[in-house]
Amino acid sequence: MEVHKVVAPPHKSTAAKLKTRLKETFFPDDPLRQFRGQPNRTKLIRAAQYIFPILQWCPEYSFRLLKSDVVSGLTIASLAIPQGISYAKLANLPPIVGLYSSFVPPLVYAVLGSSRDLAVGPVSIASLILGSMLRQQVSPIDDPVLFLQLAFTSTFFAGLFQASLGILRLGFIIDFLSKATLIGFMGGAAIIVSLQQLKALLGITHFTKQMSVVPVLSSVFHHTNEWSWQTIVMGVCFLLFLLATRHLSMKKPKLFWVSAGAPLLSVIVSTLLVFVFRADRHGISVIGKLQEGLNPPSWNMLQFHGSHLGLVAKTGLITGIVSLTEGIAVGRTFAALKNYHVDGNKEMIAIGLMNVVGSATSCYVTTGAFSRSAVNNNAGAKTAVSNIVMSVTVMVTLLFLMPLFEYTPNVVLGAIIVTAVIGLIDLPAARQLWRIDKFDFLVMLCAFFGVIFLSVQNGLAIAVGLSLFKLLMQVTRPKMVIMGNFPGTDIYRDLHHYKEAQRIPGFLILSIESPVNFANSNYLTERTSRWIEECEEEEAQEKNSNLRFLILEMSAVSGVDTNGVTFFKELKKTTAKKDMELVFVNPLSEVMEKLQRADEDKEFMRTEFLFLTVAEAVASLSTKGPSLNNV
Amino acid sequence: MEVHKVVAPPHKSTAAKLKTRLKETFFPDDPLRQFRGQPNRTKLIRAAQYIFPILQWCPEYSFRLLKSDVVSGLTIASLAIPQGISYAKLANLPPIVGLYSSFVPPLVYAVLGSSRDLAVGPVSIASLILGSMLRQQVSPIDDPVLFLQLAFTSTFFAGLFQASLGILRLGFIIDFLSKATLIGFMGGAAIIVSLQQLKALLGITHFTKQMSVVPVLSSVFHHTNEWSWQTIVMGVCFLLFLLATRHLSMKKPKLFWVSAGAPLLSVIVSTLLVFVFRADRHGISVIGKLQEGLNPPSWNMLQFHGSHLGLVAKTGLITGIVSLTEGIAVGRTFAALKNYHVDGNKEMIAIGLMNVVGSATSCYVTTGAFSRSAVNNNAGAKTAVSNIVMSVTVMVTLLFLMPLFEYTPNVVLGAIIVTAVIGLIDLPAARQLWRIDKFDFLVMLCAFFGVIFLSVQNGLAIAVGLSLFKLLMQVTRPKMVIMGNFPGTDIYRDLHHYKEAQRIPGFLILSIESPVNFANSNYLTERTSRWIEECEEEEAQEKNSNLRFLILEMSAVSGVDTNGVTFFKELKKTTAKKDMELVFVNPLSEVMEKLQRADEDKEFMRTEFLFLTVAEAVASLSTKGPSLNNV
Repeated sequence: MEVHKVVAPPHKSTAAKLKTRLKETFFPDDPLRQFRGQPNRTKLIRAAQYIFPILQWCPEYSFRLLKSDVVSGLTIASLAIPQGISYAKLANLPPIVGLYSSFVPPLVYAVLGSSRDLAVGPVSIASLILGSMLRQQVSPIDDPVLFLQLAFTSTFFAGLFQASLGILRLGFIIDFLSKATLIGFMGGAAIIVSLQQLKALLGITHFTKQMSVVPVLSSVFHHTNEWSWQTIVMGVCFLLFLLATRHLSMKKPKLFWVSAGAPLLSVIVSTLLVFVFRADRHGISVIGKLQEGLNPPSWNMLQFHGSHLGLVAKTGLITGIVSLTEGIAVGRTFAALKNYHVDGNKEMIAIGLMNVVGSATSCYVTTGAFSRSAVNNNAGAKTAVSNIVMSVTVMVTLLFLMPLFEYTPNVVLGAIIVTAVIGLIDLPAARQLWRIDKFDFLVMLCAFFGVIFLSVQNGLAIAVGLSLFKLLMQVTRPKMVIMGNFPGTDIYRDLHHYKEAQRIPGFLILSIESPVNFANSNYLTERTSRWIEECEEEEAQEKNSNLRFLILEMSAVSGVDTNGVTFFKELKKTTAKKDMELVFVNPLSEVMEKLQRADEDKEFMRTEFLFLTVAEAVASLSTKGPSLNNV
Repeated sequence: MEVHKVVAPPHKSTAAKLKTRLKETFFPDDPLRQFRGQPNRTKLIRAAQYIFPILQWCPEYSFRLLKSDVVSGLTIASLAIPQGISYAKLANLPPIVGLYSSFVPPLVYAVLGSSRDLAVGPVSIASLILGSMLRQQVSPIDDPVLFLQLAFTSTFFAGLFQASLGILRLGFIIDFLSKATLIGFMGGAAIIVSLQQLKALLGITHFTKQMSVVPVLSSVFHHTNEWSWQTIVMGVCFLLFLLATRHLSMKKPKLFWVSAGAPLLSVIVSTLLVFVFRADRHGISVIGKLQEGLNPPSWNMLQFHGSHLGLVAKTGLITGIVSLTEGIAVGRTFAALKNYHVDGNKEMIAIGLMNVVGSATSCYVTTGAFSRSAVNNNAGAKTAVSNIVMSVTVMVTLLFLMPLFEYTPNVVLGAIIVTAVIGLIDLPAARQLWRIDKFDFLVMLCAFFGVIFLSVQNGLAIAVGLSLFKLLMQVTRPKMVIMGNFPGTDIYRDLHHYKEAQRIPGFLILSIESPVNFANSNYLTERTSRWIEECEEEEAQEKNSNLRFLILEMSAVSGVDTNGVTFFKELKKTTAKKDMELVFVNPLSEVMEKLQRADEDKEFMRTEFLFLTVAEAVASLSTKGPSLNNV
């Protein structure tokens, strides 16, 4: 049998290695690839297009596209107006701030964003977190101006943080919110948000400021005397109507416009009802007078000093990361659906700048919303122009239509919020988690109950902590596979998986399935010595056989550190004491280099015990006599 | 060519899987193996031996062993007495506590410990940390009783924590202190400790309470008027003597007794000098009167309430983990040298109980010391009886010899400490780190400078944080290898490592070298799509060829979670859009199961695209025509 040599990898300097490593870490998508080998003019144009994606599609924009975009833009505007008002209330902000936030940020995103389907605006979860975190220190009722200042400053920090992640190419940080975490977190948040709406739906005036289930429910049942039957009747009617339209649109996706238009219709109908019957004098609370006019500047309201700075920065960080996760996920989902590419880091910069600009123009945290983007996509949006159309519609509303909302009852806004967030409770996904991965299910439960019973931040922290713990455990307890031969072939596979595979007498063949480093070298030492002992016992039962070779299949050892090197050195000594030879199969380039560098005495990387495949190692070593041990 | 089927792994229930997983995680050494299939009597004996390792060797103990143990016990006692006094001063404790700590804990360890070479007693680094952390809140001079109470309580917590790690089988936590961290940390601590000794060596009376380099040096040079030449002369003489003996013993290991006996000799000589010349009246500070008698009980001094509880618990945690690391490492080193096995978790219980008992008998944190164990081993120690001999010697000292230390000068204790810790600065190891792994070198530097310029805890925290960050980065940016064929063989290896390997037209063969999970699925998506694009470009240059198959070699994918499953599903969709087929090679049992469970539509785990080896996949797929895409 011909034996292939394991050769040293092509030489690379430390600087070159560092460069490759940094590139793989921070530029896995190689964004500069498109510039390479192009004339300067092209480079310039591509750079401009890279920074402002609007330049990519603008020159080819046609009337046909515009028609689609206008339809979808108007559709999402009809959703954005009632949702904007509702979500602002969820964040304890004046309703008009929700509309402001649906005007400026979509314009910014249309210029900078690379997704064609993202519909930008305030979202429920970020609103909830912003409102509840700030309320820990400042009351939105007693000190509304300060509260507004903190909200804008948080928005600024959120934007700054998001843009920094993108610029520093640290976008992978949002990956640490795993699918399981998000499902649990969103489900919990949806329940918290819905429970908060009981205030509006039941017409309660004295309501707890806390967010978690227990105080909210106790607040609800301690104020039964405040329940207003007029409010409840109205709330139930509109809630049923909204849920019915939602159900219809889910059954027949073509009727998406039914659920998209329902909130605005509810607002109009309920406002008319209140106005005609003067129901605001009969226990139904209404929004009240709203100021007309476009976004006032708010950069003078940003506060970068004082006792609340820590809170504001933390709020910005958490709302920033949560809203970023939603925005990026939405962008990626629709990009995959329509087969175009969304650059995560670029999106982060776009969303971040959008929030920075927003914070200076009376907007609070915005991002690409799941539900609204789905409507946008269903309505046939082709480009970011639909965002511009929505923005213009909101502008018209802000300029001329604000007085119409004076009699809009709060209970309808509550119903709109409940209908919007109910979709965040994803039971099929939870069932899927249970089926595929029990640990992920546990993570989901932790996020869910953490959000419900502790707080949004703690729930998130527990779930992320648990996920990271699992990662660390996987590194600390790496998989090792004991391999056997498929008789008559060169194939070696897991003995415990394939019954066909057979142990070869005299050989113990182990495959290490992970990098070897400080976190697992002790475990590997213990585990290996147990494999060896068990194997020796087995060999002892068969006669005429003793364990002579420990073959380590290293294809999956993608890296070693100093502790890892020590592991191999110690293993070499241990096996030598037992008169066994340590054989390496297919070490990867980096690992091989490090082992060789550590091997001053040329002891364990001897070419006669270094093979390219297990089959060649076994074949080659079997032919040599037992005298080999004395080489 | 015969094609081997990838079969489903043998069925296992969730409970069975959980059991295996837990066993691999917490009982990798399978400590109950020795009990299996034994008669009850044997089981009982083995259980007793398991809990009290002394029972393992006691019955076979002989006079010959005793002789060795007495010699080595006396040798380490001669080291333990001056070191005990010195280290207690390092911890800001009365010198006698150091001797108490060399009496009880060795007895406890002799019964419970499984190492035969560990010499137990106070150690420099744990003493330093204990003293400096407690001094942050309580002054050992103004409030010595409270300080002592806190020291004993910290010792209790340290012991409790250590024993808990062992009992809960969480011993792997100390693995997170990597070799690089330890080298940097010990070097930094040695320098801090040595600088602290400048107080004694220069005879300064007003000295800073801080530990880091800058305040200590400024303290030294701001009090030049306090420098006492008598002290300096004496200090330099004894320091040179001690360093010379140390150097001699390192050159000629047979003369280990020279450096082992030197500290005691220095104490005796210097005490005599002081006594004869009454040097204590000429600027040389001495220990002063010491109380005679054995350890008084101290359980009534443990304080589990009050404002210092947090500090005490934290101090216990950090000293506990640092001293445990030293003890376990020493035990493992000598066990490997003499070819016996030390059970990490059992050692933790032994060391932990030793400290719990110690805290009730006026001892502070103790563990197995590097230097003393080396002397013990060199002096021929055979069993833990050498610890008992040392303990008895210390007892005799405590009972009868205490008055002799009244005139011992502090400067000699300082010299002893400097000589002891200087060996912790391991330059060759640092050079080795630089050669093998630059990142480990960086971690070491962080630990070193963190300890020197910030604080012991912060230095440690930074280094551990950096190590964990690297682990996470490895998980987040896993290695992927693009494989090529060795012409004329079935071997497929890294194209960039082996020039021999050649790409097979129409195939892109990728090997994923890590579990696929939430932390890396997005990266893998981006990276894979780039591989595909690059490969398509290459194929486009050659005529008559287009990319038809993406083969994923999955041998190294040791696990997937829900995000990982989604990655494969999305990849299937992406490849399908490009008219490519996704082929899996050798998925491990767990991965295969999860993918199958997630694959309701039987879409991507179709047997015709599932192979056991890359070679079989290529051979089998090449023969099929291009019509395959339309299957």
